[in-house]
Amino acid sequence: MTTIGARIEEIAPGRVVLSAPITPHIAQQHGFAHAGATFALGDSAAGYAALSLMPEGTEVLTVEMKINLIAPAAGTRLVAEGEVVKPGRRLVIVRATVRAAAEDGTLRDVALLQGTMIPS
Amino acid sequence: MTTIGARIEEIAPGRVVLSAPITPHIAQQHGFAHAGATFALGDSAAGYAALSLMPEGTEVLTVEMKINLIAPAAGTRLVAEGEVVKPGRRLVIVRATVRAAAEDGTLRDVALLQGTMIPS
Amino acid sequence: MTTIGARIEEIAPGRVVLSAPITPHIAQQHGFAHAGATFALGDSAAGYAALSLMPEGTEVLTVEMKINLIAPAAGTRLVAEGEVVKPGRRLVIVRATVRAAAEDGTLRDVALLQGTMIPS
Amino acid sequence: MTTIGARIEEIAPGRVVLSAPITPHIAQQHGFAHAGATFALGDSAAGYAALSLMPEGTEVLTVEMKINLIAPAAGTRLVAEGEVVKPGRRLVIVRATVRAAAEDGTLRDVALLQGTMIPS
Repeated sequence: MTTIGARIEEIAPGRVVLSAPITPHIAQQHGFAHAGATFALGDSAAGYAALSLMPEGTEVLTVEMKINLIAPAAGTRLVAEGEVVKPGRRLVIVRATVRAAAEDGTLRDVALLQGTMIPS
Repeated sequence: MTTIGARIEEIAPGRVVLSAPITPHIAQQHGFAHAGATFALGDSAAGYAALSLMPEGTEVLTVEMKINLIAPAAGTRLVAEGEVVKPGRRLVIVRATVRAAAEDGTLRDVALLQGTMIPS
Repeated sequence: MTTIGARIEEIAPGRVVLSAPITPHIAQQHGFAHAGATFALGDSAAGYAALSLMPEGTEVLTVEMKINLIAPAAGTRLVAEGEVVKPGRRLVIVRATVRAAAEDGTLRDVALLQGTMIPS
Repeated sequence: MTTIGARIEEIAPGRVVLSAPITPHIAQQHGFAHAGATFALGDSAAGYAALSLMPEGTEVLTVEMKINLIAPAAGTRLVAEGEVVKPGRRLVIVRATVRAAAEDGTLRDVALLQGTMIPS
């Protein structure tokens, strides 16, 4: 997460919000965040959300994740909200929405993720 | 791609191989490449494979991508092989396999991707 | 849809609810609805939701769909709520939630779908 | 499976082929097999492939499955080939390819599936 300059914005049980600046570092030729950076932030928010419901010392791994990229990630920051849809001892089902924040603070949905985490 | 130090290993029509070092930069606490880095390399290999079948000057965007992470990405390098499964004017269906290379060059499958690209 | 005895429960712009009885016809050995039937109902609800935002005479096709099955589909009826997350001229992003209704009317989430439709 | 008239064509360890007729029963308005039927056959082939590697008496459930529909399922029969990509005690990663057979026996890929099964 440090690679993309992410920071934690909010933590609640089963819900975590992360954000990261859209820098040339993670952007493609047009200045939009790359699919890989958008995925990384959304996946991490979902993973932390899963972790927030587990005993201390547990870790989680992504088993599988699907991302739909629905708009160009143009703006100054990416904001990813991860949530647990279905907790479980063996499998945790998660979703995340990634939004791009413009200079003026306006948020626009750019990607939706849905996947599965396991405690490890 | 430069963010994760990726380089092109092979380009053929409809098939592209990329690789990137597994550095602390893209690794999690256990030294395995992070799901985000694995995704980014696989998605890029798939995108370049789609691009390899298009007229010069075209660009492609990921519409959606699914990744199954099947083994820890432990080793010194990630190698991603992207291929076009079904070319199309409107939509291009792609797959990618990401492998981790150990010191001795042994390769191990770590992730499978399947998704859709569009020319833009 | 007639194969699984589905009926329309609600139609609103961008949102459609379908339901179908859980009969031995669509159930596996334990009396739970089969993943295929759950998928079919969710995918259809999502498709009709996409169709509800299009000019009359248009048809839609599923480009890709991901389903997470989160609980056994036990009960008397399946109820699928499809919604358009992001409309578009070329691609429509959809989601659906499938629930199982027990004898007493209690609803339980059994599956989440996320995918892409195209007008055809 | 009886609902869609499926039959087993081949069984080998980690690989199962199923087929089913494309009847009005499972077809949409244009005579193509519905996405739901295509999914059901592919998911079943993948599930049986997983089962083929397990101790007798075990059952498997689909945790999640992604399908890309790449061509209209036009023809007389659907043929689904499921295979285990990565066996495991807790999770089994599977893929399936669904093809449509024309009158003259020609096969055409119509869908690709990738997902996760668990023993239950």
